[in-house]
Amino acid sequence: MNKQPPLISLLTDFGLDDEYVGVMKGVIYTGCPQARIVDLCHSIPAQNIARASSMLAASYAYFPPATIHLTVVDPGVGTSRHILIVEADTHLFIAPDNGVLTPLLRSPSLNSCHRLQMPSCEDFSATFHGRDIMAPAAARLAAGAVPASLGVEIASENCQKIDVAAAVATADGVLGEVTAIDHFGNIATSISKAQVAAMGMEVAVIIGDITLNRVHRTYAEVTEKAPLALIDSRGFLEIAVNRGDAAAILDCRVGDRVRLLRRR
Amino acid sequence: MNKQPPLISLLTDFGLDDEYVGVMKGVIYTGCPQARIVDLCHSIPAQNIARASSMLAASYAYFPPATIHLTVVDPGVGTSRHILIVEADTHLFIAPDNGVLTPLLRSPSLNSCHRLQMPSCEDFSATFHGRDIMAPAAARLAAGAVPASLGVEIASENCQKIDVAAAVATADGVLGEVTAIDHFGNIATSISKAQVAAMGMEVAVIIGDITLNRVHRTYAEVTEKAPLALIDSRGFLEIAVNRGDAAAILDCRVGDRVRLLRRR
Amino acid sequence: MNKQPPLISLLTDFGLDDEYVGVMKGVIYTGCPQARIVDLCHSIPAQNIARASSMLAASYAYFPPATIHLTVVDPGVGTSRHILIVEADTHLFIAPDNGVLTPLLRSPSLNSCHRLQMPSCEDFSATFHGRDIMAPAAARLAAGAVPASLGVEIASENCQKIDVAAAVATADGVLGEVTAIDHFGNIATSISKAQVAAMGMEVAVIIGDITLNRVHRTYAEVTEKAPLALIDSRGFLEIAVNRGDAAAILDCRVGDRVRLLRRR
Repeated sequence: MNKQPPLISLLTDFGLDDEYVGVMKGVIYTGCPQARIVDLCHSIPAQNIARASSMLAASYAYFPPATIHLTVVDPGVGTSRHILIVEADTHLFIAPDNGVLTPLLRSPSLNSCHRLQMPSCEDFSATFHGRDIMAPAAARLAAGAVPASLGVEIASENCQKIDVAAAVATADGVLGEVTAIDHFGNIATSISKAQVAAMGMEVAVIIGDITLNRVHRTYAEVTEKAPLALIDSRGFLEIAVNRGDAAAILDCRVGDRVRLLRRR
Repeated sequence: MNKQPPLISLLTDFGLDDEYVGVMKGVIYTGCPQARIVDLCHSIPAQNIARASSMLAASYAYFPPATIHLTVVDPGVGTSRHILIVEADTHLFIAPDNGVLTPLLRSPSLNSCHRLQMPSCEDFSATFHGRDIMAPAAARLAAGAVPASLGVEIASENCQKIDVAAAVATADGVLGEVTAIDHFGNIATSISKAQVAAMGMEVAVIIGDITLNRVHRTYAEVTEKAPLALIDSRGFLEIAVNRGDAAAILDCRVGDRVRLLRRR
Repeated sequence: MNKQPPLISLLTDFGLDDEYVGVMKGVIYTGCPQARIVDLCHSIPAQNIARASSMLAASYAYFPPATIHLTVVDPGVGTSRHILIVEADTHLFIAPDNGVLTPLLRSPSLNSCHRLQMPSCEDFSATFHGRDIMAPAAARLAAGAVPASLGVEIASENCQKIDVAAAVATADGVLGEVTAIDHFGNIATSISKAQVAAMGMEVAVIIGDITLNRVHRTYAEVTEKAPLALIDSRGFLEIAVNRGDAAAILDCRVGDRVRLLRRR
């Protein structure tokens, strides 16, 4: 166990309208009074495993080593789906075995993967394992327990995976899609910084009816309310409007196609 | 005082659009730098004492003993209404004397009830006693003060109570109502787990035009997008739709009737 | 450095739909594991520097001395705009040099103003300096660094300022405007408590088509659903409706005029 106070991040689809996040924290503090808890995000669309997976992958490395990341997006709650404890890249992850940990399970830095031993008694609800099973497990890890004391090790091949949105090379460039719209209306895509770099900044970016003629470095390189493409803070191509709401202005939704084309 | 850092939970109708929750935390840390603070929920509908009361009752026991639960839903702010400090079930509660603590005041585990001594000077606002009076009191309790040092003990009979929504036995079953709709659209009711258990799981559940023919254990026992009844994580009958928004699909609102009927 | 754990408040326009606030906290805990972090507010309208400025000015003094207030409302991110560290009134402030710190820069208690030395490497994003530059700086201050170790001192005259909404004296009273609508629908104005006090409570308050005939002390002095004027918890004139949503009922928006007139 660290000398530094243990840190737990929470990522859920619970929203903040109910007491669900609060009681999970109560449970964690009951099991580990020294823990620190950070809300990573609770606005994942209900049951959207893919969105939680990509947000977690984009975020965890900004936390200190040994942070415990608890992700509760759990449409299979109450079924026989397992709960995983994954060690990867010096961090710990707890989540249902439903694919939400796919990027970690495929990571070259994957260290171990355990299946949480479920409580033997029937003293937990059928609808809120975040509170009744996962939060207590996170607290035990925070208090110093090793994953092997909480379950049996399994091969990552035996864990659920999901398809991760990835942009693909085409004859004349790259074809990707919109993966998320953020609070500002900025449009995140599946086209990576490396894919952009391989084609150069002088490239056509096509989304809906709009073609942008290059990738910029920063919002202020275009006039106010003008659209632009740039690399976002997660390392992917973003379509934005300088001081405006790009998704509203361009009438864009998650899943829409985005293309990079070499300019003639 | 505990060896463990003191813990304070916050439950308000302030929302998160303003600085109100943040400044209450500033005041608490000013009075007790060692405190830990958990947001239980800030989305109580404005001035909805009943909703705050039931959420608090459903939540507090998930926190460690000696947690201080500060509830600020306070339509009478600035009037002569009192502020209470209640000890019950090894927890501490601070709230306006407006009925929000009814379940604790009626609890067999009620230990004491004090009326907070109001600050004598006029150096507090007429509109934000959460910040100016209740947060400082919570900080003093967190720092180790006992309730008797902050006010005079009173009989719980002299405190305001509210009617708590309760389902009633009828000739052929139980009549309850919808008490809340959560973030997922799940429909909470006033029919308790014990009332369901007394009738058995093979019971008709009637809400609006829909009759469900039994109470299930978990969402996944029905097909996707199908409605079902089950026991929620608070210990009450819930009407849900597997991976769907029940309140939207069933066009259901808080206050709607829900019936349990014995099946022929 | 204090014996008490360092405290950092966060004020942004990030909302809570994304991971942005969470990863800033991860960065802060990476740099200063002992820090405590309070969310002041993340609901500032996108790029609204004036709103963030007035909220910060109304809030910071409720935090303990030596609190580090990190404000990230940063429409100029990626440009050559500077980042400031300001010491004023025993608190520390970090923010872009875009006017958001105007009230502190003009404060008689201003102690020092430093321009943050930008990291020399290009190893930070062009779109999220809150995460890559400001949060690490806040963590270093929290860990005990002095502002002079993070940048060069500059004169406050060389910092950006914004016009702060202020009510002005007129021949027959005071002319102000609506500065904010809160979660309850309460209407905040730019007319200060001192301006009201100078005219007395028996004064006409005019907003839209409504004239209120005095300034009350508390909501409950009028009947339910009646409009009233009173002094809000920030020290400004507020127009409210007792247990109602004044902005909706009076159809009022930020920027609308509000007048105080002497009564005949």
